Amino acid sequence: MGKYIFGVDIGGTTVKLGFFDREGTLLDKWEIPTRTEDDGCNILPDVADSISEKLKEKEVAIEDVAGIGVGAPGPIDGEGVVHRAVNLGWGVFSIKKTLEDILHLPVMAGNDANVAALGEMWKGGGRGSRDLIMVTLGTGVGGGIITDGRILTGVCGAGGEIGHVHVEDAETESCNCGNYGCLEQYTSATGITRLANRKLAGCDKESVLRGGEVSAKTVFDAVKQKDALAMEIAEEFGKYLGDGLAVIASVINPDTIVIGGGVSRAGEILMDYIRPHYEKNVFHGSREVKFALATLGNDAGIYGSAKLVLDAVV
Amino acid sequence: MGKYIFGVDIGGTTVKLGFFDREGTLLDKWEIPTRTEDDGCNILPDVADSISEKLKEKEVAIEDVAGIGVGAPGPIDGEGVVHRAVNLGWGVFSIKKTLEDILHLPVMAGNDANVAALGEMWKGGGRGSRDLIMVTLGTGVGGGIITDGRILTGVCGAGGEIGHVHVEDAETESCNCGNYGCLEQYTSATGITRLANRKLAGCDKESVLRGGEVSAKTVFDAVKQKDALAMEIAEEFGKYLGDGLAVIASVINPDTIVIGGGVSRAGEILMDYIRPHYEKNVFHGSREVKFALATLGNDAGIYGSAKLVLDAVV
Repeated sequence: MGKYIFGVDIGGTTVKLGFFDREGTLLDKWEIPTRTEDDGCNILPDVADSISEKLKEKEVAIEDVAGIGVGAPGPIDGEGVVHRAVNLGWGVFSIKKTLEDILHLPVMAGNDANVAALGEMWKGGGRGSRDLIMVTLGTGVGGGIITDGRILTGVCGAGGEIGHVHVEDAETESCNCGNYGCLEQYTSATGITRLANRKLAGCDKESVLRGGEVSAKTVFDAVKQKDALAMEIAEEFGKYLGDGLAVIASVINPDTIVIGGGVSRAGEILMDYIRPHYEKNVFHGSREVKFALATLGNDAGIYGSAKLVLDAVV
Repeated sequence: MGKYIFGVDIGGTTVKLGFFDREGTLLDKWEIPTRTEDDGCNILPDVADSISEKLKEKEVAIEDVAGIGVGAPGPIDGEGVVHRAVNLGWGVFSIKKTLEDILHLPVMAGNDANVAALGEMWKGGGRGSRDLIMVTLGTGVGGGIITDGRILTGVCGAGGEIGHVHVEDAETESCNCGNYGCLEQYTSATGITRLANRKLAGCDKESVLRGGEVSAKTVFDAVKQKDALAMEIAEEFGKYLGDGLAVIASVINPDTIVIGGGVSRAGEILMDYIRPHYEKNVFHGSREVKFALATLGNDAGIYGSAKLVLDAVV
């Protein structure tokens, strides 16, 4: 059994790679550009080349590698087949088989947000948990669910799509997914900005937010200064996210909810706005959940994809 | 490896038992009373006695039995430990260990609604699926979720609690669980009756429902006669259930949703009211779901608990 694992996180502009031992120590990490031209046909060969070079550099024999884990932005089913990844130019094909044919090593693949959740469970904010919900509040809202230590993949790899849970019937603007009233429209960085601009336009209340550029960061900075209008915006954000997480947790019964992504840099103050709504609506069996901030940042994907391999080949 | 399995479904008044072969053929089924007195301490010994008698009757050696599966009404974790089952008088103890110590056979245990979902997946309305949501519309609303062929148990056995998903902020009456606005309050048999009585009291519209006794059955019978008021009630029911299932399916990504329980006797007409709301709000990756009626009725629990054993000892 190999001593080392590679974790690979394929993004729209760069591919992050990590070289791990079986205990999850990150021995090296680096990036290569993602070549999305020509339907992204170079991406996996580039990954394979980069891994081969690293093995040479480290003087590690291929027999000492347990496998390669890959996270990518798209629905990826339990067999390692991606069902379109628009950002990469990919259609439908087996990531697992393609990379195994080049490298002759075991390959496991999963959706990037799901894999990041696994990473946070293994070595991040969700350490010690086996039943966890992770929500990533970035430009959009990503999510991943772990039940009994394993990624909830779903039938075609769309499991854990927390950002597109419907939370508002009255919405008139459409979400990127085509629906109306998705959680992402209120709790992503852009969603919070939208809530703020609506609130500012809809009243004359004084606020430090008036005049300057409004963003998720300026909103939560203003909340920390006890700006009343900013606190109203945070309250709306917290109701949408707390209510949404309550519904999901009522059926998932997690012990931990990890909040990550750019918005999570606001820190523990987020929980003050999320938790009361969560606790009010969640089924009592899931009330005692721990809210934690993500700790791995952009490395969650490489950790999680390495863990995919470890779980599969043990 | 034993050729036979027992499936046991412990209810508040009777225990149902089934004797299966490994292919899932139900060779015999019978019931015994549930003795809930003395904190329910006789229930498992009674089950053990009944199984021993059946083995004698069938002239089957204990070595030919692969194991016993047990479903019971309460949160039961992945180790077979029940965390209070009020209807049975049970506190916290290991069902698995207790019954294994008496029978010297492998025992697996799970929550009754979750186990019923597994049964419907194996031999009922969800046959062929490995990612399924089951919702049981009875006096209350029960639920079970199967992901990748396995029950979603959650950290303390409260996974799949679909009935207590929050769907209505404006509710003023509390649910049995203590929260306000749970799915169960609008979509169980009693919930539909509540919706109907509210509707009847709130308007003067003519309806065949006026004057007689109102129940989920009379409401859907009236819907089939195209009674306008009954159709409005069905519409409310369908919105609550369709919206609730859409949120859950957005994160579970199932291929099948099975509707069971007494209310499901209304038949396919239920789907006409649920599906439009479901399709409007669900994430596109989970839109192509198959809605199916449960087919095993009260036997779902014994089938599912037998399957628990099969999955564990294979």
